[in-house]
Amino acid sequence: MSQHIWHPYTRFSALADGLPRIVRGQGMYLEDDEGRTYLDAVSSWWACSLGHSHPRIIQAIQEQAAVLQHSILGNLSHPPAETVATQLARLMPTPDRHVLFASDGASSVEAALKVALQFAHQTGRKTRTRFVSLKEAYHGDTLGAVGVGYLDEFHRLLRPALNEAWRLDIPACGTCRNLDCGTPCFAGVEEFLRDREDQIAGVIVEPLCLGAAGMKMYGPGYLHQLARVCRDLQIPLIVDEIAMGFGRTGRMFAFEHADIDPDMVCVGKAITGGYLPLSGLIVRDDIYATFSDTPEDHTFYHGHTWSGNPIAAAAAAETLAIYEEEDVLGQVTETSALLTTLLKPLASRDGVKEVRTLGLIGVVELDPDDETPSRARRVQHALRDRGCLLRPLGNVLYLMPPLNSTPADLEQMVGLLRECIESVLG
Amino acid sequence: MSQHIWHPYTRFSALADGLPRIVRGQGMYLEDDEGRTYLDAVSSWWACSLGHSHPRIIQAIQEQAAVLQHSILGNLSHPPAETVATQLARLMPTPDRHVLFASDGASSVEAALKVALQFAHQTGRKTRTRFVSLKEAYHGDTLGAVGVGYLDEFHRLLRPALNEAWRLDIPACGTCRNLDCGTPCFAGVEEFLRDREDQIAGVIVEPLCLGAAGMKMYGPGYLHQLARVCRDLQIPLIVDEIAMGFGRTGRMFAFEHADIDPDMVCVGKAITGGYLPLSGLIVRDDIYATFSDTPEDHTFYHGHTWSGNPIAAAAAAETLAIYEEEDVLGQVTETSALLTTLLKPLASRDGVKEVRTLGLIGVVELDPDDETPSRARRVQHALRDRGCLLRPLGNVLYLMPPLNSTPADLEQMVGLLRECIESVLG
Repeated sequence: MSQHIWHPYTRFSALADGLPRIVRGQGMYLEDDEGRTYLDAVSSWWACSLGHSHPRIIQAIQEQAAVLQHSILGNLSHPPAETVATQLARLMPTPDRHVLFASDGASSVEAALKVALQFAHQTGRKTRTRFVSLKEAYHGDTLGAVGVGYLDEFHRLLRPALNEAWRLDIPACGTCRNLDCGTPCFAGVEEFLRDREDQIAGVIVEPLCLGAAGMKMYGPGYLHQLARVCRDLQIPLIVDEIAMGFGRTGRMFAFEHADIDPDMVCVGKAITGGYLPLSGLIVRDDIYATFSDTPEDHTFYHGHTWSGNPIAAAAAAETLAIYEEEDVLGQVTETSALLTTLLKPLASRDGVKEVRTLGLIGVVELDPDDETPSRARRVQHALRDRGCLLRPLGNVLYLMPPLNSTPADLEQMVGLLRECIESVLG
Repeated sequence: MSQHIWHPYTRFSALADGLPRIVRGQGMYLEDDEGRTYLDAVSSWWACSLGHSHPRIIQAIQEQAAVLQHSILGNLSHPPAETVATQLARLMPTPDRHVLFASDGASSVEAALKVALQFAHQTGRKTRTRFVSLKEAYHGDTLGAVGVGYLDEFHRLLRPALNEAWRLDIPACGTCRNLDCGTPCFAGVEEFLRDREDQIAGVIVEPLCLGAAGMKMYGPGYLHQLARVCRDLQIPLIVDEIAMGFGRTGRMFAFEHADIDPDMVCVGKAITGGYLPLSGLIVRDDIYATFSDTPEDHTFYHGHTWSGNPIAAAAAAETLAIYEEEDVLGQVTETSALLTTLLKPLASRDGVKEVRTLGLIGVVELDPDDETPSRARRVQHALRDRGCLLRPLGNVLYLMPPLNSTPADLEQMVGLLRECIESVLG
């Protein structure tokens, strides 16, 4: 019985019939206590990028759990966190980075905002106290993160508690993949930032795809231009790779498509294969270096109990090793092309507004409707009845399967999705 | 090499000589890569309440890791989270509770603040948008949590980004343990709250001991009165048990000393024995019930990827079972009396301002000094050289050993502490 759990992002009315109780995970599948299996088509909130029960990650967790469960990183160190920090630094364009660990993704965003504020302050730009983000952005649910995120009707009541960001329009370039497009999508943004440069502590974006907004995509050209202007104005650019990082878009990080070198990168979710809570803020050393305690004390007095928890770090170290040794990105290159091909026929279907893909994100956006439950919701329910778990965002149906999905896995998922869309759209 | 880790709460100058690299934990001890062992006298940031490598928690982690590493709680459930939610509900004065899980402790504080704001809004008290907290309080490092925490010189620069709480003086009752003391310490507080009741969304406190402030203690009478007034004004009282919960003060929760039934309780740290990241917000059902989606949608659109992560939840379930089956609270009753006895002789020592204890918290506060490094810092270094890890807060030296420390363990820790204090104070 789940009667004492407050289920996140779950309407009370959805609890009435009981929720599937998941007891086991294996590869692409979750299994409930009645022996029913479900294809995990959204990688358990975009985190389980290598599917469930990957034997190497299990072993890494079990081995680390046996010898050192926890030790803090305040004035101490331990090898699992050192390994992950080094791996992350090496995945950046240049390895001159320091990594501040936390456990919830939102905590790494909070850390980024605080680093940006303190960086501005201690480098003599004390009027820089505001942030700029994209409309409909999502960066997490803590109050600092909500302040740079989308304020829908449910968040407006939080306004008095927020440092609200200035918001840029979502780039209109959609699935443009051209880095040298002339970036008409960027028109006005440079002026917007230059006009407010004295007040901006940082700019934060989800790179190339606004996830919670409904997998809204934009081109690498925009991000490239944004990074250029930020660098020029010495405003830190914070790239939130929590959802897109670790191969989701076909590159290790989505920002690589834009050929940029971000000042700060937030990571989480797939970093441990989604198996244990770990997040991180990766900071360029030219920013980090300003947090010295000599001659004046600029120490960043900030931390969380489990910053770099050894077991979670061991899971992350193994996950990143698997990415390299099993060529996960190479697999995604092949399967993302297949995903695009498989979804394409749906684009011309009546009732479908758009089909779009990026890496191993496959989106089928339905036309808006005012049915109750909505068409997207009915597709979700039909899929669940057929053993496939999806979580539509409004009228946006999307697949974010594990990155080691085989062609057969994808054919099965898309087949089920098409079947259910057909049955609901009629 | 820890060269890519940004060490939390660590001055750069402390990195120069290298940090101990912890590779193993066993019982009260951490061991570094040179084979040196250290008594973990602060339970790794107050979290590892059962010491290191407790075989039952290790086994629980390993077993859960083998079958289900992660599955979300959004429209799904799983047994480990159900078990922990039920255990936590049953530990409250009455079990009518729902538990919202997160991973960082600060995230549970953020959730509490947001629940309080939305609760006020949807129950028609829309002007209630501010919080009240204690001066020098610490509730975590995310921006919402910093807004209700102490603003020292390093936090002031964050002000433009905060919803700053109104702050109450720290109760002057010190180590008073009398619930029926007439509570002169509470004078003025009721008026303060009544004068602002239309604007207060919630009151948040660390119960009985302000940890990061320097283990500043206050009496249960104050907390009892505070709960009474909050209930009267229908202002939710948020009790932050992250540091004090799970036996640290000699009761399962510190609020029990005050004989109250809080509206919201934040938990973390020792909930998993400190082994894996897990935090929770425990909410009374009369508040929870207002988040229904019928007839209007009041769903709490809030969550974190790893909310109730199965492996962390399995560690927590086993930890709470150990508390019961190994009578951890009974042990603390005995050892806390011993700790008080052992520390007492230091109270009359020149250079010692005060000795105070609460449960298994033992504080030796030194007289202020302006030496560099400070006397407290020199005691810390001397202890580390003798194989004992402490983290003073200003001139406050404190022990927060694992709750299953034996009398011999405590004698050893206090013996080392006395030795080092003697050598530094001369």
